[in-house]
Amino acid sequence: MAEKTSRNPTACVLLIGNEILSGRTQDANLNFLATRLGKAGIPLREARVIPDVPETIIATVNELRPKYDYIFTTGGIGPTHDDITAECIAKAFGVPLERNPEAMRILEEHYKAMGTDVNEARARMANIPQGGKLLENPVSKAPGFNIGNVYVLPGVPKIMQAIFDLLLPTLAGGPPVIMHTVTCDIREGDLAADLEAIALKYPQIDIGSYPGVRDGKWMTQLICKGSDAEAVKRAGNEVIEMVKRLGNLLDVA
Amino acid sequence: MAEKTSRNPTACVLLIGNEILSGRTQDANLNFLATRLGKAGIPLREARVIPDVPETIIATVNELRPKYDYIFTTGGIGPTHDDITAECIAKAFGVPLERNPEAMRILEEHYKAMGTDVNEARARMANIPQGGKLLENPVSKAPGFNIGNVYVLPGVPKIMQAIFDLLLPTLAGGPPVIMHTVTCDIREGDLAADLEAIALKYPQIDIGSYPGVRDGKWMTQLICKGSDAEAVKRAGNEVIEMVKRLGNLLDVA
Repeated sequence: MAEKTSRNPTACVLLIGNEILSGRTQDANLNFLATRLGKAGIPLREARVIPDVPETIIATVNELRPKYDYIFTTGGIGPTHDDITAECIAKAFGVPLERNPEAMRILEEHYKAMGTDVNEARARMANIPQGGKLLENPVSKAPGFNIGNVYVLPGVPKIMQAIFDLLLPTLAGGPPVIMHTVTCDIREGDLAADLEAIALKYPQIDIGSYPGVRDGKWMTQLICKGSDAEAVKRAGNEVIEMVKRLGNLLDVA
Repeated sequence: MAEKTSRNPTACVLLIGNEILSGRTQDANLNFLATRLGKAGIPLREARVIPDVPETIIATVNELRPKYDYIFTTGGIGPTHDDITAECIAKAFGVPLERNPEAMRILEEHYKAMGTDVNEARARMANIPQGGKLLENPVSKAPGFNIGNVYVLPGVPKIMQAIFDLLLPTLAGGPPVIMHTVTCDIREGDLAADLEAIALKYPQIDIGSYPGVRDGKWMTQLICKGSDAEAVKRAGNEVIEMVKRLGNLLDVA
């Protein structure tokens, strides 16, 4: 595990893919990354979904990388013509895209074991921007890569998750973001004033209110969140007291 | 239904909410909006998820509104202290936030029927930027609003969807985006060269390849997409021929 930092580094996720923007695919990567990053003390501050358009990918990567400590991209690193992420990242960093010998060795070994050749399409998955470090892929072998503060991951959730789980312990994180969730049957309009009073007392804690439906009935979830664990706990206890005063506590998590 | 335009207007979705960035909530709004907008001929070109931070909301709205024909925001228009979208939109447009009399009338009628008062917290939901037009909410009554090319919707999916379904027929759309999906058992690396040849023949059609798992087996989905229905069909037929030549067609949708 990399050393803990005293402050929380920040992260941005960039989902690259027409399939999410067209509605064909319900994204599953953002929630996975958001949850893991929060627990590792690297809170996700922004996410974007952009299409497979080279100028858009290049400009977005270059806009985001000075703004956040870590940028994670997903999508566009397979063998087909629409997989253009690696070449766009190379252009964003102003370095050549090179056929990486170690990546080629990994692909050759993998496809040999499957009784297939690494044809030209598959060899594209070994094209890595100069200076990029490979990220191990325990599922389908074709590696992701890291250059600067940008981590390039595939779009298929099962593969992305496996690479990310090997990557995460190597990243420096801050104190974990702690979350207390209090669910109640009180309507937001009936608790807003009391909740705001608590929020004003704990400026370092993010206190949110989220109405929703459970078992066919409206309910409200109140979340206290922050990396000061002690303050999150105190604010959470005040929220529980408030809920008991105004209505019914359904559960605490 | 608003008149059809000959070109496709473009859309951007802005999801405002800490709960998606923290991983607490799996977003359900983006996929709904992407699908409906595509069918209405208003392709979604970008989506962003940003936190409940006033400067971020204001700057992002002002960055996006000249770039796209329509901006749809979700989240942050309820009665609690963390609902700050309306005041941020007012600041982005440089207009005052006003208590809208029609919105107040709607809220008073609704809460009277429920046997409750419109307290100060609930009355915040009637605060609309000057010049904003109300968007009817058939579920929980508190309206969304439209100002300029920005459409402000709530974050609760059920309510957002109901408002959007009333709104969509009033928006001018272009020809619908047509999608043909061909699913096969061929690995991407074995079809990449042939697929690229088809993609090069149809530059106006977006042809994508998406590997995934179905019934425990790897499969590949090939999508042809565009608003030229005739060309999408011809490209789709070529993809089907290719699949039959290289492996097995699993299904066409």
